[in-house]
Amino acid sequence: MLKATIDADIFRESIDAIAALVTECRMHVEPDRLYTRAVDTANVAMVSLFLKTEAFESYQATKEEMGLDIAKLKNMLGMMSKGDKLRLTLPEGAHRMEMAFNKYRYAITLLDVNTIRKDPNPPTIELPGKVVLSGNALQEAIKAATMVSDKIALGIDPVNKFFYMMAEGDTDHIKLELGESEVESLTMVEVRSLFSLDYLKDMGRVMGKAEKVEIHLGVNHPVKFSFDIAEGNGHIDYLLAPRIEAE
Amino acid sequence: MLKATIDADIFRESIDAIAALVTECRMHVEPDRLYTRAVDTANVAMVSLFLKTEAFESYQATKEEMGLDIAKLKNMLGMMSKGDKLRLTLPEGAHRMEMAFNKYRYAITLLDVNTIRKDPNPPTIELPGKVVLSGNALQEAIKAATMVSDKIALGIDPVNKFFYMMAEGDTDHIKLELGESEVESLTMVEVRSLFSLDYLKDMGRVMGKAEKVEIHLGVNHPVKFSFDIAEGNGHIDYLLAPRIEAE
Amino acid sequence: MLKATIDADIFRESIDAIAALVTECRMHVEPDRLYTRAVDTANVAMVSLFLKTEAFESYQATKEEMGLDIAKLKNMLGMMSKGDKLRLTLPEGAHRMEMAFNKYRYAITLLDVNTIRKDPNPPTIELPGKVVLSGNALQEAIKAATMVSDKIALGIDPVNKFFYMMAEGDTDHIKLELGESEVESLTMVEVRSLFSLDYLKDMGRVMGKAEKVEIHLGVNHPVKFSFDIAEGNGHIDYLLAPRIEAE
Repeated sequence: MLKATIDADIFRESIDAIAALVTECRMHVEPDRLYTRAVDTANVAMVSLFLKTEAFESYQATKEEMGLDIAKLKNMLGMMSKGDKLRLTLPEGAHRMEMAFNKYRYAITLLDVNTIRKDPNPPTIELPGKVVLSGNALQEAIKAATMVSDKIALGIDPVNKFFYMMAEGDTDHIKLELGESEVESLTMVEVRSLFSLDYLKDMGRVMGKAEKVEIHLGVNHPVKFSFDIAEGNGHIDYLLAPRIEAE
Repeated sequence: MLKATIDADIFRESIDAIAALVTECRMHVEPDRLYTRAVDTANVAMVSLFLKTEAFESYQATKEEMGLDIAKLKNMLGMMSKGDKLRLTLPEGAHRMEMAFNKYRYAITLLDVNTIRKDPNPPTIELPGKVVLSGNALQEAIKAATMVSDKIALGIDPVNKFFYMMAEGDTDHIKLELGESEVESLTMVEVRSLFSLDYLKDMGRVMGKAEKVEIHLGVNHPVKFSFDIAEGNGHIDYLLAPRIEAE
Repeated sequence: MLKATIDADIFRESIDAIAALVTECRMHVEPDRLYTRAVDTANVAMVSLFLKTEAFESYQATKEEMGLDIAKLKNMLGMMSKGDKLRLTLPEGAHRMEMAFNKYRYAITLLDVNTIRKDPNPPTIELPGKVVLSGNALQEAIKAATMVSDKIALGIDPVNKFFYMMAEGDTDHIKLELGESEVESLTMVEVRSLFSLDYLKDMGRVMGKAEKVEIHLGVNHPVKFSFDIAEGNGHIDYLLAPRIEAE
């Protein structure tokens, strides 16, 4: 059972974050939080998201699992305006969730959760490098890289003391170096991995709105992007597998 | 013969209203007004529009019938800016109308009226239900309905005292209920008909700009939308045939 | 060798002006200026552009010829924001130019100049008619003409004392007449030539930003458009061959 009211913008932020990777997901309703963990169809990227009850204007729930059609929800959210309140109502064991806003009542049929991939296990990896910067700077860097290539290297150079991103195309390349004074924090460990911009572009659109994003890096290891939503009452982790760097 | 000057925005509003249904029309020029009545090619919807001489800055005319290429006029209107004055000149019996604005003189060849469908007869139907609401609210409701279906039901529930619109898709549905305090006026008669959103979408774009729109409804009858343009110096009626409601 | 810093907007203005006609060009670097002259692949239009050292914030150069991929530069410029400074660095005889802005360093491989058409000779033609008007008015006139035709006639009527542009379609035509009080200056010589709007549309987008454009005309002769960029520290000439006027 779920009875909750949430600011439409916070709900939109959450759905957009999930939509960057998957078109449907299992949303877990718990008495003290809403959460999901999903991997994309190619098993390359994972999103974990939770919203604490504080992210809602009102929240009342018992344990429940909802199959959400993310694409359809995104479409529906397009109708809501800034400042709209969204009331979510899911009776116990029901297959339809009601979403009410303004004078509208929208009933969405939930997906059968058995048709949606089970929650992936969170991988246990150690990522020694960490840099914290504004989501906007990160998004800009991702956009810049797409101008010359479909891959981007992210790394930390502890000798010259900077975080860098580098993209190499057939004829051109672009490099961004950010020293300690240009990021919020930076661990001086040598790390570097290569990633597909296809995934990063979509994640970048979401992360661009975050005040700050923690980037966790290793050597030819996945990258983890970690950032808050809903004014700190929600949190998102993106995990993205590396690509093999050609010599 | 026609010699008239009109604000470009008022002319654009009129042409846009016609363009929602047809690509060409017979425009009747009379000493005291300009009017047209046209049905779409599928005979499903009708538009009636008139502009009183007060809608013009200056107006001088003798009886005339002009074949207008609406699509071409829309294109041309895209060149005019807010506040531009448009001077229309049609010599008696001429086949070309001159449209002058700024320093431009544009000569448009009129269509042969014999190639355009004759004016339809206005149907004599009684529509007992009537609700008056803002054009914006109506347009929003039409947009909301398109999210889940290609049809929309419009009706009045005299027991619970509200006007409603409802759209049902294969899995989802959306409903909007507006009580007496949420509309300008509402007659408490039980009415309900189903309409194609294909037509309503285009009409909605036009009606969205009207301060208020009268909606006249019956039981499985056409709907009539009635609203002013040109600050009350012009008027538009849209008539749309119902679709058969499947049981 | 080139070491220069320039406002990103001025660089963008210059690249856009070249991009209206060609996708690559030979850019000549000289100690006192940067310049290019290029014709389009169909030999119908020519662009000449120069930037004086005053157009740059700093400028240091020895003679050099660079093969520029204009399309790629346009793409890259999309990343820069208003007010950004762009630092161009080309070591002597190098095949790569570095473009640095914000914290980004972008290395672009130059094209082999031998694969790019040699500089065309500037034709020696006399164009007795001249009119000076705002770039915006010129662009509006070009846009208006495209509504009815793919050709435009430009001319001066010394008897009635106006500059005119005229476009004739199969059924419609549009005419713009600007008298002496409506342009900056006008020579009273009878001239008239016909031009392809295909070319003028792209040039118009560039010229629309110029405060004033000099138009030089003859009788069935090319037209030359001449205007400043970079606040007078740069200049562009467009030359466009006439089309034969059918009787």
